[in-house]
This record gives sequence, C-alpha cells and structure tokens, in this order.
Amino acid sequence: MTTQNILLTGFEPFEQEPLNPSWEAVRALEGWQCQGAQVVARQLPCVFGKALEVLDQMLTEFKPALVICVGQAGGRSQLSLERVAINVDDARIADNAGRQPIDQPIYNDGPAAYFSTLPIKSMVKAMRAAGIPAEVSQTAGTFVCNHVFYGLLHQLTQHTPAIRGGFIHIPYIPSQAARHPGQPSLALDTVIEGLRTAIQSAMTLQQDVVEGGGQLH
Amino acid sequence: MTTQNILLTGFEPFEQEPLNPSWEAVRALEGWQCQGAQVVARQLPCVFGKALEVLDQMLTEFKPALVICVGQAGGRSQLSLERVAINVDDARIADNAGRQPIDQPIYNDGPAAYFSTLPIKSMVKAMRAAGIPAEVSQTAGTFVCNHVFYGLLHQLTQHTPAIRGGFIHIPYIPSQAARHPGQPSLALDTVIEGLRTAIQSAMTLQQDVVEGGGQLH
Amino acid sequence: MTTQNILLTGFEPFEQEPLNPSWEAVRALEGWQCQGAQVVARQLPCVFGKALEVLDQMLTEFKPALVICVGQAGGRSQLSLERVAINVDDARIADNAGRQPIDQPIYNDGPAAYFSTLPIKSMVKAMRAAGIPAEVSQTAGTFVCNHVFYGLLHQLTQHTPAIRGGFIHIPYIPSQAARHPGQPSLALDTVIEGLRTAIQSAMTLQQDVVEGGGQLH
Amino acid sequence: MTTQNILLTGFEPFEQEPLNPSWEAVRALEGWQCQGAQVVARQLPCVFGKALEVLDQMLTEFKPALVICVGQAGGRSQLSLERVAINVDDARIADNAGRQPIDQPIYNDGPAAYFSTLPIKSMVKAMRAAGIPAEVSQTAGTFVCNHVFYGLLHQLTQHTPAIRGGFIHIPYIPSQAARHPGQPSLALDTVIEGLRTAIQSAMTLQQDVVEGGGQLH
Repeated sequence: MTTQNILLTGFEPFEQEPLNPSWEAVRALEGWQCQGAQVVARQLPCVFGKALEVLDQMLTEFKPALVICVGQAGGRSQLSLERVAINVDDARIADNAGRQPIDQPIYNDGPAAYFSTLPIKSMVKAMRAAGIPAEVSQTAGTFVCNHVFYGLLHQLTQHTPAIRGGFIHIPYIPSQAARHPGQPSLALDTVIEGLRTAIQSAMTLQQDVVEGGGQLH
Repeated sequence: MTTQNILLTGFEPFEQEPLNPSWEAVRALEGWQCQGAQVVARQLPCVFGKALEVLDQMLTEFKPALVICVGQAGGRSQLSLERVAINVDDARIADNAGRQPIDQPIYNDGPAAYFSTLPIKSMVKAMRAAGIPAEVSQTAGTFVCNHVFYGLLHQLTQHTPAIRGGFIHIPYIPSQAARHPGQPSLALDTVIEGLRTAIQSAMTLQQDVVEGGGQLH
Repeated sequence: MTTQNILLTGFEPFEQEPLNPSWEAVRALEGWQCQGAQVVARQLPCVFGKALEVLDQMLTEFKPALVICVGQAGGRSQLSLERVAINVDDARIADNAGRQPIDQPIYNDGPAAYFSTLPIKSMVKAMRAAGIPAEVSQTAGTFVCNHVFYGLLHQLTQHTPAIRGGFIHIPYIPSQAARHPGQPSLALDTVIEGLRTAIQSAMTLQQDVVEGGGQLH
Repeated sequence: MTTQNILLTGFEPFEQEPLNPSWEAVRALEGWQCQGAQVVARQLPCVFGKALEVLDQMLTEFKPALVICVGQAGGRSQLSLERVAINVDDARIADNAGRQPIDQPIYNDGPAAYFSTLPIKSMVKAMRAAGIPAEVSQTAGTFVCNHVFYGLLHQLTQHTPAIRGGFIHIPYIPSQAARHPGQPSLALDTVIEGLRTAIQSAMTLQQDVVEGGGQLH
C-alpha cells in the first residue's frame, strides 16, 4: 500500500526579503508523518500564472490527500486560516517576474470565489488550545497568495472535489521584523508547530466545528 | 417622463450605539438630484433575513437605476468601497433581533460570492481627488452588512443585471469615537460629501478605470 | 483695562505637506473671546531653536494669561492633550531648516521633563462630553513639537510660573488623509470646536479633575 | 575577588494573566555570566509602593553593577528600550493589591522625570543586528512599570549614580496572544536572546552610539 501524500507549499522570497518564512516553515515539515500520511513540501514561484502551472503539476504528481498552501503576510500577527479565495488579481507591487495585473480574473470562466474546504474553525481552535496565535481571515488579498489559493480550489473542485485544500498566511519571523520596526512576528518554531497542529486537525476531522470566526466588517 | 431613482440605504443603530452614521448620512441625501436621477433614502433593519426582505420590497417599489447600501464600520478610518460580497453569515455578535448565525449560507443556491458592480476604483479616485479619505476594501465582513450586500447583488444579478449595485462602509462619526477612545472617525459632512462624489461617479461612468486597489494579503 | 491674551500657536507645514492643520485651526480662532480674554493666533516655524526664539518673543510681546501650542500628529485619531515634555531632541526627519539633532538636550541646564500645567483631564472630559474625540497622551515625541512644548514650560516656569501652558496634538485633516490611505483624520471644524472647548476649560477651572487618563505601558 | 552582580527583575502576573513573560524570561537568565559579572534574577510584586520597597532591598543586598527591570507590555510587538520614566502614577486598572492611584507623584520631592542610563540606542542596534525586533520607546506608561523604572533611577541617582539602570518592555508570548486574538507576541526564546544581547551591550559599552530612535509625535 502506498502512503498518502500531504502537499504543503511555501513561496520563494519576494519584495526584497532575503527569505520567505512560508518556505522555511514548510520545508521543515518535509517527510513528517501524520495519520499515516506524509508531508511533501515544495516551493512555488511568486509569479502570477507560473505559480499555478507549478502547483498543477504537483497535484498531478503527488495526488495528495490534503493540500495546504502557505504564504507570508508581513504585518499580520497570527497564523491566518483563509476562508475565501476570490477570482481577481490586483497587484499592489510587481511579482517576481515583473508582472503587475490589475483587476484581471484568474480564470475567465471561474466563479467569483471559492470557500476553503479545510475545517478552518477547528484548526484555529486546535492551534489556540496549543498556545499558538491563530485566526480565521476573511480576505487573502489580491496578490499571488490569493491567486494560488483560488487556482488550487478551482483545480480541486473540478477534478478531485473530495480532496481538501486551503491557504494559511503566516507573519514575518523575528529577523524580518527586526528590519521592519513595529511589525509583529512569530518565531519559526511557533509557525511550524502551528502548521503541525493544523494538519493534524485537517487529517482527523470529518466535519468542521460550528464556532464563530467572523468579523462585523 | 418619470425621474429615475437612486436607492440609498442606511442601517438602524446596533451594538448599543445611539445612532448609525450610515442612516444619518443617507437621510441627508434624500431627494438629492444627480444626473437627472433622484436619491431615495431608506433605512434597513440590522437583522439577518428581515433586512433583505425590506430591501427586496424597495427594489420592487422604486425600480432604482443605481443602488448603494451604506453601513457603519467602527474602527475604519476611511470610506470603504467594498469589492466582494460572500455567501456566508458568521455573526460575532447578535443582530437586533437576537439572531447570531454561524457559518450559514445567505442563499443555499447562491454562488460563493458576487463582485460589486459599482465602478469602485473610479469612485475611490474621485473621492480622493475631492480630498475625502477612501479605499477599496477586500472584505465586507460576515455580519448584516455583508448579508445585505450579497443579497442585493443576488437580486440584481437574477432580475435586473444591468442595474449597478454595491456597498460602502463608513467610519464612526466623532461623537461615537468620543465614547470609543482611540477609534478613528469622519465628520458626517465629510461622509455625505463622499457619498455625493461616489454617486456622481457611478451615474456618469460607463466603465471603471484600471487602477490598483489591491492588497498583498 | 486691557483685555487678557490667550496665545495660541500652530506650525508651518513640514514633511512635504501642503498645509499644517494646526495653523489652519489656530488661525480660525484669532480674536475669539473667552472669559474676557482674547485669542492671539500665531505661527511657529518648524525649526529647532528658531521656533523657541519666536515663541519667546511672543511671550514677551503678548504677556498671555494662557498659552496653548498646537501641532500636527499624522497618524493619531484624536486630539491629544500632552502630559509631559522631555528634554531631548531626537529627530527622525530633518526640520524645515535641514537640521536633524539626535539625542541633544533642549536646554543643557534644564530638568529631564516638565509636566503640562493645563488641566488636561478636565479638557479631555469636556471635549468628550461635547462629542469630540480626545485623549491624554504620555508622549509628545522628540521632534519640534516636543521641543516647543518643553521650551514653553521652561520659560513659563522660570519667569511666570502662574501662567498655564501646554501642548495639543491634532490629527491630519481629511484632505491630508486622502493622500495617506489608511491614516485617520478629523475635520477642521471638529478640531476648532475641540480647541474652543479646551480653552474654555483652561480659562474657567482652577483645579484639574481627578480622572484616569493613564496607560499600562 | 567577588563577582559583580547584574540585577534583572521581572514582575509577577497581573490583569488575570496566568503568567508574566517578564518573569519567565528573567528567571531563565539567573546565573548567566556576562563580562565577568553574573545575573541575579528576582521577581517584583505588581503593586505600587511595595514593588519599590522590594527593589530597594535588592539594590542594598546585591550592590549590582547594572540593573535592568523588565515588564510585560501586552500589545507591543517588539522589545522596547524605555527612554524616560516620569514622576506620576495614573493607573488604568487596579494593581495586585487593589490600589489605583490617579495623578499621584511617585516621589513628592522627585524631579518630573529621569532618563534611562542604559545605552539604549546601542542596545537596539545590537538586538536588530542579532535579528531581534527592538525599538526605543518614548513612554513606559503610567502604571507599575513606569513606577518601578522611576523609583529605580531615583535611588541610583541619589546613592550610586555611576550604576546604570533602565527598563525594557516585552510583548506577550504566543500562548498569551492565543487568548487575545490579534495581539502580537514574541517567543520566550527570542525575548531571552534579546535580553542577553541587551546586557552584553550595556556591560561592554562606555558610551551610547548617536543613532536616531525618536518619534515625530
């Protein structure tokens, strides 16, 4: 019997950062076993379009039982379980290939949005119980992270709707915040522990809990 | 020939506030003429379900050429042109009828989201040019404001897809911020002027401008 | 009998701003009568050293019964009644004459700090009662505003200790915030009304009220 | 020859927290050797007056060559090197003995403020170089932390002016932030490493560097 794969992706650095904590955290979990499945950690380019081509190949190659894409959210203070991916690219800065699309749909024939199919409320609950700062987030932005999140759900919905997928944003790590005075950060170990807890929840729970995680606005 | 109607809605007060600035601003524009159309200002209850019933009746009664729903966003500092409404209610507090739905779809058969059909980039650009703080927002939250925003676009899309509609969040006014130390506010006059500018843009522009208004995350 | 003077100062613009709301607010109160005294509104240069020379001349010329210096605090959302001025210049940017002192005392022989002699708790209380967002602030920074605040109290303490003096920081006005997306603002009218309320308190109250206005850190 | 002591204090928990990260960090450094001196880590009560009595006894007992008091600043994201202690207690909440002084001087005969005698600019520079988020702070608040900071400098100035002393505020640790959604945090290991770096700077540098660390307001 083959072991199931859990596909975990992080991004290459962008916006002049020397590293991307999403990749540093994800690579540390390569090979980690959870509920009889094993983590395959891979890096995505921070490039519109290209990131989705690479992700699609990974989906084909690894036939994962679970997919979690992780990205850096400089300025946030907690692990953010993204609730919804929207069908638009609106780039405040250029991506790593110099592209800066504005108000372009990701898939012309795609719906306006997809909801994460991860049990995000349970994941937040489990992380908080483990002492790890976490929240549900109502927006993944409109840059490459949202682009990948939307593209992932578009692929899964069309081809393997039973496979759960979603996106987690993580803060800067301290060495980045030391160069961006005032910005919050989390130690890489805390992030890695958070991702472990999140994966554990997603692999064991059939249904999400009903717990508030909304915003007034 | 009948004059065209512009339907502008505000909300009743909620969360122990003595007033709701969205209603105060909207009512001040009752009867205002813009591009040969006239503003009809109406109040919505801050109640899941009921707010949409009332809104649907207004759409039938006034057959508006443009619909803008306005709501209070305590804690924001600018007029926020909402980009997207999502198909979920997740109430952090109870509404004015004591209901607090968690992770319930607004319409069981509705899509995950609708994009605003207002020219939001043009509206932000015009407001800033007029000296009024404004932004594009990527989330309208998951409370009654998003509920109304989604329900409005669901109705318009199904029955009168040529009619533009959307949602604008506004900050506290100063008298509210005086009781919530540290929270930003905008004077009612500034908000009213902002709404006038926004309506003007929506009534005159056929197509939105292509200008950045996204977020990295 | 001569009318008493209330000296109100604002600053010239700095940091590439087209105007300084402190001067716009203060000049609007020129000649305003309060408790038998009359406002004299004057502008100070945003220059270390020079600002104090100009202020000292004004103190000599107008022999004011009350002195309130007002300055712009871009990023704050309320009128801030400053509690304490400290004896240090530490400039994050250059002043309008290109000077950028770092860790220099304002007066070599001055004490580490002076407390405002305005009834700041009463002033905040009166402003909030009037619906105007206000707070006590524990730091006036280390730029020209703190410099003027410290220099004012140094002069008053040495020569006319019975004369009350202090400093109020004010937010951007909306037209400035429209160019600094995300920053809070207050309408000029709200600021002017706040200053009127503040002056009224300072002219009528002999003693400050005992009301909390502190910070945990 | 006796080894020199470095006195490091943290506080007991307050405001319903199960722990105080300042004590957790400080106790981890008990016995740490730095430049031939050795850390003595002690806990202070979070009580006005009593905290200073205990601190004074420690100063007498340990005759330290350096004193750094550390306190929790929930809501801050970096280690904050406090620049100035002011002569006022203004408690937003009650201390652990139920006392809540408002606008009371700490020492009736004390000056308005004392500046930290630590080389705070050098300490921030060294921490940032080590990848640890740090800043100079212009206010230590008006609660027990500022009270201890002021009292420490009052004692040192009067009796042993050659001995350096100061105060460092630290963020929540992640397990606290997990219960205060949205608040930033730093891992305890990061804080401990930051304190080591800070002590190292203070023990080796005779003079502080001249580097900006101010605020506009």
